[in-house]
Amino acid sequence: MDNRNLIKEITEQVIKNLQEKRLETRTLSPKPQAPSPKPQATRIFIPVGISNHHLHLDKETLSKLFGDGYELTVRNPLSQPGQFAANETVTVIGPKLRALQNVRILGPLRKQTQVEISKTDGIQIGIVPPVVASGNLEGTPGVSLVGPKGAVNLSFGLIRANRHIHISKDDAEKYGIKDGQIVKVKCSSEKAMIFEKCQMRVSENFVTELHLDTDDGNAADLICGDEVEILI
Amino acid sequence: MDNRNLIKEITEQVIKNLQEKRLETRTLSPKPQAPSPKPQATRIFIPVGISNHHLHLDKETLSKLFGDGYELTVRNPLSQPGQFAANETVTVIGPKLRALQNVRILGPLRKQTQVEISKTDGIQIGIVPPVVASGNLEGTPGVSLVGPKGAVNLSFGLIRANRHIHISKDDAEKYGIKDGQIVKVKCSSEKAMIFEKCQMRVSENFVTELHLDTDDGNAADLICGDEVEILI
Repeated sequence: MDNRNLIKEITEQVIKNLQEKRLETRTLSPKPQAPSPKPQATRIFIPVGISNHHLHLDKETLSKLFGDGYELTVRNPLSQPGQFAANETVTVIGPKLRALQNVRILGPLRKQTQVEISKTDGIQIGIVPPVVASGNLEGTPGVSLVGPKGAVNLSFGLIRANRHIHISKDDAEKYGIKDGQIVKVKCSSEKAMIFEKCQMRVSENFVTELHLDTDDGNAADLICGDEVEILI
Repeated sequence: MDNRNLIKEITEQVIKNLQEKRLETRTLSPKPQAPSPKPQATRIFIPVGISNHHLHLDKETLSKLFGDGYELTVRNPLSQPGQFAANETVTVIGPKLRALQNVRILGPLRKQTQVEISKTDGIQIGIVPPVVASGNLEGTPGVSLVGPKGAVNLSFGLIRANRHIHISKDDAEKYGIKDGQIVKVKCSSEKAMIFEKCQMRVSENFVTELHLDTDDGNAADLICGDEVEILI
């Protein structure tokens, strides 16, 4: 071979080798694939409890409304262990002197008296209280309570309870949920909606359940025991 | 050059050329970039109108309740052109003989009498009607109406109105919305939520507005005129 032919042959060989190499690389590469599906997240369904307006009393307020030494009597137990609806009710009077009648007391007694109503109730009695977590009573408005043995003018304690989910410690661990975490909840009723700003409350004493007021429950066409889905 | 040296030189030359080629290709390629952001979708914000329980009357029912030849009088115009709240109200009585008092009539008269209440109202009077679009009265329950000159027992016409959005033809075209389309609506109040199953209603006579009943409005802590966002 003369130099010219030799150059040609070598060049062709180099190119051929490179092409084969490229082909081999292609063949060995994993096939292009659709992105692998994300692992299916566990979907979390829980039952709903809808709370009509109600109140929790401290010992002093109970005495003023029902008489010294009076004790609440159990009408029926509630889903959270140890909690009960009492047979006793009171009348709640707002600043326009309009009333909510037969507002049920929930037991047992607490350290602070707290009256929980919906916005619809608030419009009826002329005062719409803020949305707060149970027990956060600082700065909340007062209201008057009338019982069979007396009346009390509360200087604070009227609230709309925030949406919250009682969750057992076991369930919280299972689903990786932290106490105080804010989640969304989806319901698929005739009036489907997604509730935002639902606060998780974890305790080993809790039965897992979403608590809504009657405005939320009626707006979403839910009844107690309906299942809803937590969206984290 | 002997053949060996020639081969070496040619090979080096080929490799050099290939490297230069690769470098050139790299330099000319567009820089690797983050995926270009999706074009920002137009966000659609509209005001809310919250409808308390109310009713629309046909001519015959108006006569029975208010007397022959009676005509409604205008209390105030509503946001939709030509519609008004009348000074006249009636009492609505459910199957348990419990009443909703001072239920306002909206004018003008319609071909069919229709009574629109919330679930909260329904629980109060002992009957919770189905959620339907205005005018779809087949299979709906009846209710009793009492006016100053007489009472009427309707055999149908009690409804919960579905969530719906009045939208002007211009706005519908601008946003690519079709009559009858179902959308979601997000509100960002203290009790934030997303309403599903909201029906679009397109007309050149409409002013763009979401219509909710008082359960939805109070659950989401909205008042008339608040802005919400349509999610398509």
